[in-house]
Amino acid sequence: MNARELWTRYKQYLCTSDQLGLRLDISRMKFAESFFDKMADPIARALEAMESLEKGGVANIDENRMVGHYWLREPQLAPDEQTAQAIRQTVSDIKTFAGDVHSGRITPQQTDGFYVVLVVGIGGSTLGPQFVSDALGAAHDPMLVRFIDNTDPNGIDRTLAELDEELERTLTIVISKSGGTKETRNGMMEVASAYQRRGLNFPAHAVAVTGEGSALDKQASDEGWLRTFPVWDWVGGRTSECSAVGLLPAALQGFDIDRMLGGASECDVITRNRNVFENPAALLALMWYYAGGGHGQKDMVVFPYADRLLLLGRYLQQLVMESLGKRIDRDGREVSQGLKVYGNKGSTDQHAYVQQLRDGLDRFFATFVEVLSSRRGKSIRVEDDVTSGDFLHGFLHGTRTALYEQGRESVTITIADVTPHSVGVLIALFERAVGLYAELINVNAYHQPGVEAGKKAAESLIELQGKVLGYLHSHPEADLTAQQMAQALDLPDEAENIHHLLQHVTANRDHSLSRMAGSPETPFEARYQASAKRPS
Amino acid sequence: MNARELWTRYKQYLCTSDQLGLRLDISRMKFAESFFDKMADPIARALEAMESLEKGGVANIDENRMVGHYWLREPQLAPDEQTAQAIRQTVSDIKTFAGDVHSGRITPQQTDGFYVVLVVGIGGSTLGPQFVSDALGAAHDPMLVRFIDNTDPNGIDRTLAELDEELERTLTIVISKSGGTKETRNGMMEVASAYQRRGLNFPAHAVAVTGEGSALDKQASDEGWLRTFPVWDWVGGRTSECSAVGLLPAALQGFDIDRMLGGASECDVITRNRNVFENPAALLALMWYYAGGGHGQKDMVVFPYADRLLLLGRYLQQLVMESLGKRIDRDGREVSQGLKVYGNKGSTDQHAYVQQLRDGLDRFFATFVEVLSSRRGKSIRVEDDVTSGDFLHGFLHGTRTALYEQGRESVTITIADVTPHSVGVLIALFERAVGLYAELINVNAYHQPGVEAGKKAAESLIELQGKVLGYLHSHPEADLTAQQMAQALDLPDEAENIHHLLQHVTANRDHSLSRMAGSPETPFEARYQASAKRPS
Repeated sequence: MNARELWTRYKQYLCTSDQLGLRLDISRMKFAESFFDKMADPIARALEAMESLEKGGVANIDENRMVGHYWLREPQLAPDEQTAQAIRQTVSDIKTFAGDVHSGRITPQQTDGFYVVLVVGIGGSTLGPQFVSDALGAAHDPMLVRFIDNTDPNGIDRTLAELDEELERTLTIVISKSGGTKETRNGMMEVASAYQRRGLNFPAHAVAVTGEGSALDKQASDEGWLRTFPVWDWVGGRTSECSAVGLLPAALQGFDIDRMLGGASECDVITRNRNVFENPAALLALMWYYAGGGHGQKDMVVFPYADRLLLLGRYLQQLVMESLGKRIDRDGREVSQGLKVYGNKGSTDQHAYVQQLRDGLDRFFATFVEVLSSRRGKSIRVEDDVTSGDFLHGFLHGTRTALYEQGRESVTITIADVTPHSVGVLIALFERAVGLYAELINVNAYHQPGVEAGKKAAESLIELQGKVLGYLHSHPEADLTAQQMAQALDLPDEAENIHHLLQHVTANRDHSLSRMAGSPETPFEARYQASAKRPS
Repeated sequence: MNARELWTRYKQYLCTSDQLGLRLDISRMKFAESFFDKMADPIARALEAMESLEKGGVANIDENRMVGHYWLREPQLAPDEQTAQAIRQTVSDIKTFAGDVHSGRITPQQTDGFYVVLVVGIGGSTLGPQFVSDALGAAHDPMLVRFIDNTDPNGIDRTLAELDEELERTLTIVISKSGGTKETRNGMMEVASAYQRRGLNFPAHAVAVTGEGSALDKQASDEGWLRTFPVWDWVGGRTSECSAVGLLPAALQGFDIDRMLGGASECDVITRNRNVFENPAALLALMWYYAGGGHGQKDMVVFPYADRLLLLGRYLQQLVMESLGKRIDRDGREVSQGLKVYGNKGSTDQHAYVQQLRDGLDRFFATFVEVLSSRRGKSIRVEDDVTSGDFLHGFLHGTRTALYEQGRESVTITIADVTPHSVGVLIALFERAVGLYAELINVNAYHQPGVEAGKKAAESLIELQGKVLGYLHSHPEADLTAQQMAQALDLPDEAENIHHLLQHVTANRDHSLSRMAGSPETPFEARYQASAKRPS
């Protein structure tokens, strides 16, 4: 297609919403005219299904749950008044709480105010908050927000060391809907221990965001934490940004959560439109379908040309891949579905892997995000009448063109600026695109059965570790190889796992186990024994 | 394969180097025994080619350049004594310079010492430094290191606002081998302007890392910058971590660069081994070949189970994808080669997209990185005799197992700890794996012809912007749509680009151009005019 035909195509398909401050350009996807005819019925059914979901239908059939994240920004849609009231009350409580923290009405034990927020969580409990914190944060936010999102002791130690003297002025938010996520539980215990070592009372610095009646809820209540905010059963982790999970850290960092909710709810209205050409979420879902043949045959490479949107790709990895990456569809057929997502930011990534995107392996479509506003205020000239922002703009469109010339397709999302409103719009846009696409490919987007296996395997390894430690500490005379240990425990199939465990345990000083001196020929002949009395 | 067979396979193929503190486990890749026989000749030729490359052969044939990054950590390998001496002198100069900055012998204009390092660069000039800074950084490093790695004004403003009062104590390092990268040039000018606005003399705070005779080199010399360190023609951006590009920021942050270079050079020795079973880089290259059929048919998903290695995936995206993602091979045949890389860290990513990896779309192999040491010092118990680090270890092996059960393959790299030495080892390991794999698939790993097109398209857009601004400012009476503007300029093919430019320019206040009041029916009917005298 030549430049004039492309301009016509651009004008024909551009989806604009002035209210949302959003445009979606699909002109660089090479669908045929007939594609929309072919998809008219499926997308109409998908839009209907979303309507039913929003009305409280049990959309998460496998877990027999409603899917209510759209109610979070439009409580009047909730299936009953009690739920609507709980949503409104929580938003109001969050704003009051954040205001009280900022004003010093809520203070820590020993100082005059909280200055740092430490969020402990993982997955859906941190990817949204991290994205929003980085997208909207500024040098002089009322509170500094930091995250512990893993069970890595070294990483936890570094984060705590960076807070250092600030711990007494740090408010810790522990986020876990189930209240039973091990990484989050561990992070919480590590943080509580750090407060304790400083002579500080953790509960006086702690807030829980969790489901009613969870282990975390009970602990917070028993220990008298500062506050608990609810997450409801009908909110999934990866769609929880508009619940207390996302709103509480955002409000504490000083962001206008009403505008974020407003952006999301306005986007919800627009993306319910049955006219797909005026519905950017439907267009996105259709483009994903077109690009990958309804089977994820092309990856989505996310290129926001804005430093503030660096974490959008990581956020979307979870939202998209955990929702769509399913082995069986809703009729029980093996489908191995999904849509791969990666990408950081432009123009930086142009100097990383655009080489491969343009010249090498194909099988992707780019998703550019353009931000019209370059900065607050005016710019210096870097060349005659050219600003740094003009270059950023030029690189985006230059790359879009260079990819297209090589037959690489792209969609471009344009927003006016990165604000609470536009971040709310983007979140709602992708949430609904995922929901619609899941309908098109007939998968349950709201469960994650595949992550259980890894957790169970990990638990069984932790259990095996207990057996190994128990044996060696009750046989202080024994020095055994991994293979011998497996035999001694009568677990011959566990020799390799025991080997891994012994490597890990003896690299640390926590379990008083040591590798015998000397250099065996191979790592498998190394012998291990209890090196001291078992720590109590 | 059952557990016992896997244990046998694990023992059979495990590649161990106690000197490097490195293990590579390929037992969960399902290659047949015969694979290594089949690949014996190709990998032997690849190892030979690497030997020739290391001796100064012109391995980057398309650019007629030697490829010398291996000399950076073993100067005696350089093809002539002058080169060897330049390498040694630069390392020595960097250490002296960093020592002088730390001791206060080199000070800024107005205060007693430099405390912050601001690195301005993009791509190969920052991905390595960012990875190393984050991997090895601690709360109390002698200097705080920050990066500007894009031409995004809003992002630059945020970074500068965070430095705030510290700018007078900030040492800015501008890194550009060619000295002509626009993003870096723009970043430098923005930073220089910020110094100026504070009444500070930028050259007195500035260091250049660049090729001799480049525009940046000349500017630094003309303006009397603090110092210039060289990058040589035979160092590619993505393999420049062991040159001044990586070593200078690392030394200033307080890292032991001799140990980093030592780790890399020891790894080089081990990875020259012609016995592939004792050569972890050769094994990695072979596994990439096996996994993707020599054509990147499976993506490499990078899972370091360590917060400190979060940026490894981004670093490898460039190293691997820019090196291998090539349209034509060395014989000029169309091959569309490459190897996709993505991933952040475990166990965090388990809560993001392991759902899809295990249950959904296949076509990937995982690359786990295991770190044996959990932390300095002892751990609290999070359960009966279980630490947070035991969980991290359990999650890694649990996920490895859960993926394998579903037929998903993986390799596992084990290191003792994240130290300057092990980071040097990892960098050298992947650099050589990329070099070997490029030989196996017969592509030039050392150029990047595909990134030029995007740059050129961007430049032509910048040029077009000049024409649009020139026209409207010289016709203050004109108010035109994008289409009319294209006609007025006699550039009918540029209507769409002019539309994009006008959207961008009028969203900012830099070019005194405005959109006429009123709400046209479509964005294409909007009219634009010069709103004031053109800024001089």
